[in-house]
Amino acid sequence: MAKFSIGIDFGTESARAVLVRVDNGEEVASAVHRYADGVIDERLPGTDIELEPDWALQNPADYLEAIKTAIPAVLREAGISPDDVIGIGIDFTSCTMLPTDKNGVPLCMKKEFKNNPHAWVKLWKHHAAQPEADRINQIARERGEKWLERYGGKISSEWFFPKCLQILNEAPEIYQAADKLIEAADWVVWQLTGEEKRSSCTAGYKAIWDPDEGFPSEEYFRAVHPEMENIVDEKMTRNIYFLGQKAGGLTAYMASVTGLKEGTPVAVANVDAHVSVPAMSVTEPGKMVMIMGTSICHMMVDKKFQPIPGACGIVKEGILPGYFGYEAGQSAVGDIYAWMVKNTVPPEYWEETRKRNMDIYQVLEEKAFGIKPGESGLLALDWWNGNRSVLVDADLTGVLLGYTLETKPEEIYRAIIEATAFGTYKIINSFEEKQIKVNELYACGGLPEKSRLVMQIFADVTGRKIKLSARPHTPAFGSAMFGAVAAGRANGGYNNIFEAVEHMAYLKEDYYSPDPESHKIYQQIFSEYDRLHDYFGRGENDVMKRLKKIKLKVKGEGVEKC
Amino acid sequence: MAKFSIGIDFGTESARAVLVRVDNGEEVASAVHRYADGVIDERLPGTDIELEPDWALQNPADYLEAIKTAIPAVLREAGISPDDVIGIGIDFTSCTMLPTDKNGVPLCMKKEFKNNPHAWVKLWKHHAAQPEADRINQIARERGEKWLERYGGKISSEWFFPKCLQILNEAPEIYQAADKLIEAADWVVWQLTGEEKRSSCTAGYKAIWDPDEGFPSEEYFRAVHPEMENIVDEKMTRNIYFLGQKAGGLTAYMASVTGLKEGTPVAVANVDAHVSVPAMSVTEPGKMVMIMGTSICHMMVDKKFQPIPGACGIVKEGILPGYFGYEAGQSAVGDIYAWMVKNTVPPEYWEETRKRNMDIYQVLEEKAFGIKPGESGLLALDWWNGNRSVLVDADLTGVLLGYTLETKPEEIYRAIIEATAFGTYKIINSFEEKQIKVNELYACGGLPEKSRLVMQIFADVTGRKIKLSARPHTPAFGSAMFGAVAAGRANGGYNNIFEAVEHMAYLKEDYYSPDPESHKIYQQIFSEYDRLHDYFGRGENDVMKRLKKIKLKVKGEGVEKC
Repeated sequence: MAKFSIGIDFGTESARAVLVRVDNGEEVASAVHRYADGVIDERLPGTDIELEPDWALQNPADYLEAIKTAIPAVLREAGISPDDVIGIGIDFTSCTMLPTDKNGVPLCMKKEFKNNPHAWVKLWKHHAAQPEADRINQIARERGEKWLERYGGKISSEWFFPKCLQILNEAPEIYQAADKLIEAADWVVWQLTGEEKRSSCTAGYKAIWDPDEGFPSEEYFRAVHPEMENIVDEKMTRNIYFLGQKAGGLTAYMASVTGLKEGTPVAVANVDAHVSVPAMSVTEPGKMVMIMGTSICHMMVDKKFQPIPGACGIVKEGILPGYFGYEAGQSAVGDIYAWMVKNTVPPEYWEETRKRNMDIYQVLEEKAFGIKPGESGLLALDWWNGNRSVLVDADLTGVLLGYTLETKPEEIYRAIIEATAFGTYKIINSFEEKQIKVNELYACGGLPEKSRLVMQIFADVTGRKIKLSARPHTPAFGSAMFGAVAAGRANGGYNNIFEAVEHMAYLKEDYYSPDPESHKIYQQIFSEYDRLHDYFGRGENDVMKRLKKIKLKVKGEGVEKC
Repeated sequence: MAKFSIGIDFGTESARAVLVRVDNGEEVASAVHRYADGVIDERLPGTDIELEPDWALQNPADYLEAIKTAIPAVLREAGISPDDVIGIGIDFTSCTMLPTDKNGVPLCMKKEFKNNPHAWVKLWKHHAAQPEADRINQIARERGEKWLERYGGKISSEWFFPKCLQILNEAPEIYQAADKLIEAADWVVWQLTGEEKRSSCTAGYKAIWDPDEGFPSEEYFRAVHPEMENIVDEKMTRNIYFLGQKAGGLTAYMASVTGLKEGTPVAVANVDAHVSVPAMSVTEPGKMVMIMGTSICHMMVDKKFQPIPGACGIVKEGILPGYFGYEAGQSAVGDIYAWMVKNTVPPEYWEETRKRNMDIYQVLEEKAFGIKPGESGLLALDWWNGNRSVLVDADLTGVLLGYTLETKPEEIYRAIIEATAFGTYKIINSFEEKQIKVNELYACGGLPEKSRLVMQIFADVTGRKIKLSARPHTPAFGSAMFGAVAAGRANGGYNNIFEAVEHMAYLKEDYYSPDPESHKIYQQIFSEYDRLHDYFGRGENDVMKRLKKIKLKVKGEGVEKC
């Protein structure tokens, strides 16, 4: 009798569950549950309480609802017995975190706190903790904290401690009342199993934890804020569990609401980008996994630790057992394409979409395919949302150079795609300069599904083969693999993720190959990109920062006048 | 009884005649005649003979037709007696030139030559003589020709001798058959009066002539091409007439077809941009006249000769008697706005134009007016059509810097307008660095009529008042003034252009004043423009040229494959 595991990917707007055959990885069923409250960025649900700019919250009740809806849905669709589900794994956006009481009840679910925005889940893209991140970085630099090198010298405002410090600064009563400050990923595992078993992935990538070094010191935290000195022991835990370990068994309550068996093994939680690495069958160095969508995450594993400019997290045991997991990224990719489509494509192109019953990306793509590398004379710097890779500088802005009176929208579209590919190539080069070879690329996410043009340009620019996920839901599938590992071989699963990959993971047969002629021309154009990258990005000409200062000043003065 | 003069402005697509009262400058009537053949850039009229790229021809018959149509039309509209028309002046695009026989019959009107494109009028924007211009410049530099300094060190492919040399190179039989190679402006005066009286303006600005130095030497021309040695004496004339002189009286034939009196004085021909200076009432140094449309011409007069980077022509007696006339320019201004509107404005903006019954420029302008200087964080280099001002480099291309995911079309529109204003400011500065003061600006042409936003930004960027033409047809009006001067005071006109200006020229009462706060911010942004201008324009980073080389190579290879 075949055995199955379930993976659930908790995304930004919805959660997706897949039910997978453990012996061969076949996806038997899948279900999506859209969060009722989605991204909360205007006002608290059911109230008039408005949020400040840059806030982004979620309702933890939505996660529980997703579990109660999506698991029964995949069971129904698959038509299998709950007895044959041997394990569950989950992955999450991160850092998405919340304050709870000692029993794990979210403070936002308590009457006395529900009107305080700080009681709610802070979603990964909550960007209001920048001052806190600045302080955390400043103190770390002043003290020469060694762990900075694991994070490219800088902690992001999206991460765990800046969000904690924002609560402490702005809502000390919530901070006091919170027995726990916890990643939503780990909280959901707690809900499923009744056990607070935090993950090495969320701890390592978002909470400055290392298997050997642990968390930053009390002295450090005290320097950041006196009341934060014992944050780890007071509101977190030093017991961190590795990926692939079993967190616990499904509780009786969760069994009753999902239709699964009580005690079904649940894996330690993962992060969406990180779980995609084994899901793409990557279990060794030399292979870079790109999760390509509105932005790109670049994931690698290697046996050695090697600080790399722009690697925003290098975490031992962070992706696969026995390896350092490397994470780098580009802060906007599909977002820039979408910006262009929304803001700069003229009506005749949209009319063509109607006439030919295509979408606008298809129309642009078809036209842009007709343009050869180098033919437009255009070159862009892909910094529409700053640069979070090699330069780690949010104040940088986008550039387009080479305009003539003959420049066409499809040429601009192609130039923007090329720029994002140059951005990835720059990251690859920065790995290779540190002797971490990148031989092949592996792509999953929305873009590889949507755009042949994007993928071919990435192959041509980087001069590398790009293999593709065969899974429409790569992270959820990866979580299902970890579910099978949590079960263990004795229960019909696997003893480790490598075994699971061997039996369950596979790729598309098709892949993208670089065209040597195109790559040669792109090498020339990339050297121009590289030069402008350094000119604008490394202080030779800080025009972007000065323009931003003028912009802020002008806008500020505007506010004063009001 | 009031006296009148007629001015005719021969433009690119049409000619416009105005009939003006000589005592007070009142415009009494005007008429437009659209050329039947317009700009000939695909095939010769009535044939299948295709033109090469970059060619642009005209049919001289269209000029004669314009005279025969537009003069009777203004006489009719004004309802005055031909006896009261005391003079005629004309101005023309330039260099627009043609080959004729010794009687002035255009070779394209002769059966044996009419199928040869080189027999036709080469319009100012005929750009196919670039190799010839390159040779003319190279030989001049090698020989250290002193006259180069009058032309910013470079002769344009649009000018007279490159066009002549192209005829000689590509159609020697036409060159041989041409008794005359002549500016269309001078040819029309010849047709009107029966006298070949060439103008100091066309000769000085387009044919390397100087009142003291004459034309370049035979040695120089021989070095360019042996058969060109005696081009001046064989196919031109050394008798050049100054602006304001009378070329002759209207012939009997022309009197019969126009309804004017035989012998009516006709002025020496002018060029459209140059005749706009007195038409804007500018008769002294310190006042820069800008003819603002698809491109901008910047015109100044001064008592001294002073080579200025980017002044593409400095001609003694070229604009006003007793002065050196300075010409500088930007190769694309309104053209860039039009490019943006055509290629990068999304449908919702066009829908707004329909709903509100506005044109797209009005919609963009309204939105862009709501943006403060510096508020968008955008900065552009206005080189969509190269840079023909300070840098004189056609291989430069446009840049837009400062894009974010929040950048809006109206911000781009404003940034492009600002860039063109920075381009003008750069020209103003290059005059002032050479002690030629620019105290005030005077604007005519299409843009001042169409866009308050453009004019305000130009005032704010340059920190200068901008006065405006009160004339809808500034060049034609200027020509009418010269018609009155050709008549002379004895015949009810004026003895010189200064007198004519005093009585006939006036400006709008409204003008644009710079806002000091905006100017202050623009000073900061201009210093960023300036730095990028030099970085990309003066060899620090020749990325634009290298991209252009790649582009040409890629396109060239494409052709080989076909």
